Amino acid sequence: MSGYNVAIVGATGAVGARMIKMVEQTSLPVNSVKLLASSRSAGKQLQFNGKPLTVEETVPESFEGIDLALFSAGGSVSKKFAPEAVKRGAVVVDNTSAFRMDPKIPLVVPEVNPEALKAHHGIVANPNCSTIQMVVALEPIRKAFGLKRVIVSTYQAVSGAGNRALQELRDETQAYLDGKDMEAHILPVSGDKKHYPIAFNALPQIDVFEEDGYTHEEWKMIHETKKIMLNDMDSKDIKVTATCVRIPVPVAHSESIYFEVEDPKATVKDIQDVLAKAPGIVLQDDPDHQIYPQAHNAEGSRDTFVGRIRPDQETPQAFQMWDVSDNMLKGAAWNSVQIAETMEKMGLLHMQ
Amino acid sequence: MSGYNVAIVGATGAVGARMIKMVEQTSLPVNSVKLLASSRSAGKQLQFNGKPLTVEETVPESFEGIDLALFSAGGSVSKKFAPEAVKRGAVVVDNTSAFRMDPKIPLVVPEVNPEALKAHHGIVANPNCSTIQMVVALEPIRKAFGLKRVIVSTYQAVSGAGNRALQELRDETQAYLDGKDMEAHILPVSGDKKHYPIAFNALPQIDVFEEDGYTHEEWKMIHETKKIMLNDMDSKDIKVTATCVRIPVPVAHSESIYFEVEDPKATVKDIQDVLAKAPGIVLQDDPDHQIYPQAHNAEGSRDTFVGRIRPDQETPQAFQMWDVSDNMLKGAAWNSVQIAETMEKMGLLHMQ
Repeated sequence: MSGYNVAIVGATGAVGARMIKMVEQTSLPVNSVKLLASSRSAGKQLQFNGKPLTVEETVPESFEGIDLALFSAGGSVSKKFAPEAVKRGAVVVDNTSAFRMDPKIPLVVPEVNPEALKAHHGIVANPNCSTIQMVVALEPIRKAFGLKRVIVSTYQAVSGAGNRALQELRDETQAYLDGKDMEAHILPVSGDKKHYPIAFNALPQIDVFEEDGYTHEEWKMIHETKKIMLNDMDSKDIKVTATCVRIPVPVAHSESIYFEVEDPKATVKDIQDVLAKAPGIVLQDDPDHQIYPQAHNAEGSRDTFVGRIRPDQETPQAFQMWDVSDNMLKGAAWNSVQIAETMEKMGLLHMQ
Repeated sequence: MSGYNVAIVGATGAVGARMIKMVEQTSLPVNSVKLLASSRSAGKQLQFNGKPLTVEETVPESFEGIDLALFSAGGSVSKKFAPEAVKRGAVVVDNTSAFRMDPKIPLVVPEVNPEALKAHHGIVANPNCSTIQMVVALEPIRKAFGLKRVIVSTYQAVSGAGNRALQELRDETQAYLDGKDMEAHILPVSGDKKHYPIAFNALPQIDVFEEDGYTHEEWKMIHETKKIMLNDMDSKDIKVTATCVRIPVPVAHSESIYFEVEDPKATVKDIQDVLAKAPGIVLQDDPDHQIYPQAHNAEGSRDTFVGRIRPDQETPQAFQMWDVSDNMLKGAAWNSVQIAETMEKMGLLHMQ
């Protein structure tokens, strides 16, 4: 049977599990799937399309004969092994931050900048989850009305920090309900010095702090948005700033997005009409019937849900909206597989 | 013994319980305390300073001999009984929205506009919780640097919707952990048509929707802020807009506040210095040591905690901060009792 030989690196992780599902459901012809992870996870049994598959340790030779390698095992793994995969003829779609800011490497959301894929040299970077769902909604607005400025505050799910963080949320939550002390060992950032409970709390730190007082997650939202929408991570054409906050939700990020457009005639109705027709977007915007996007409803969907679109009553050309998407699917596994599907349609993916 | 005769209306509610505590701890001399509620709650036994006290039904005659009446039993109760209390010589501090937008009634946060108390005619309105903690932090900034514009996104606690909503959060949370369906009967708004789970979710609706697509909570944040800071609920001197969101936190609201100042020379350090000295504020702003305000730590404190102050890197005179406070104390019970204490210091509170 003719089809692509696919490797999933980081198959035992929270995103890896979704990557397996997305490859099961992909429109790409798949000949074989190889599940890769660290030596610690090697030997584990997972399933692909109902059949057992053994996880193998990632080594350079793992990528012999691989056409498509999906990476989500941390930046250091990508830096070490993505070039090995490319050397052996694979296209790499990398879901870590390892290559995102490399100007030679496309950073792609298929609804926004598929053309950037043409310039790839083997590696395509998948943006950060919180960026993806924002630009999917902002790009149709930018195209129709121009975009001057974005101010976003996020309400991010715990799954973005991995399976251990999710277990920590469950453990802390049960401890709280039982009147016991909550123990934090992972969040807000597993590698940082201090850890705080996320259950019944809101943590205004995702990723480590930069010198300017922004977290690296906020930095990513600012500069990835510019690279994806304007092909320049430092572009001044759209002003972007962000506050990133973790809340006790397992899956699906929510975002409060304030934006200013160039077109002085743009109305809420115009923006709703544009978003209703935009790819990857589901408009849920009917306050009279209490219809608006919710994390609880977005889990498991590949779409980005947008609602609560309304004008700033005092600043012309300024609007607000509420944007929710499954951070593990559109924010990670689905966007990665969607990149591969888009590359195939553009003739950029090949069987060896 | 000489002291004030105090009535607490809505004593059995979530805020009422905190009002009892705040009156126990007040610097005001207290002669007697009367706990009032609906006929349904009459006869319940509560404690004041360790002694049992029976809850009585609120009737006009309840206020005979009362010097200070603290109301937190819903707008309709305030509209009915606050004038009865005033008629009998009491000063009313009302924690509902009944009188907040009446231009003749002062809307007061003691750190911000104590002078407004002088114009009272018996009733003083306590602002909405989410407004109070924001203006406590914005007022010192306005005084020092001028303030042009505010864009806020909130992360609000469930206790703001009362004790039944808190129980709903617990019940839904346990159901989720047990793999059962969550049942929603109260949130987002008990009187609205549809109800959604708050556990492990984020709900972008607090209070009912207005015709312009804003919720009434957002409307309150916009217009109360203008009334408190500028003495005009429709002032154009400061632009304010808001997105209000409920998250699964029991107590303490968090707020992501974006603001633009008039002074082109204001720096983060300047703003930190001003806030560090401001009344009612605790500055928690040390990213290097992961020090920032958290709901989990603010519960039980009367202070407002502010941190993560940083400049918008692309817009001059624009900054962001993270503002957290106990919505039941500074946002409700403490601000009410603080108003009474302030009135006493100003000679505006009298024993009959």
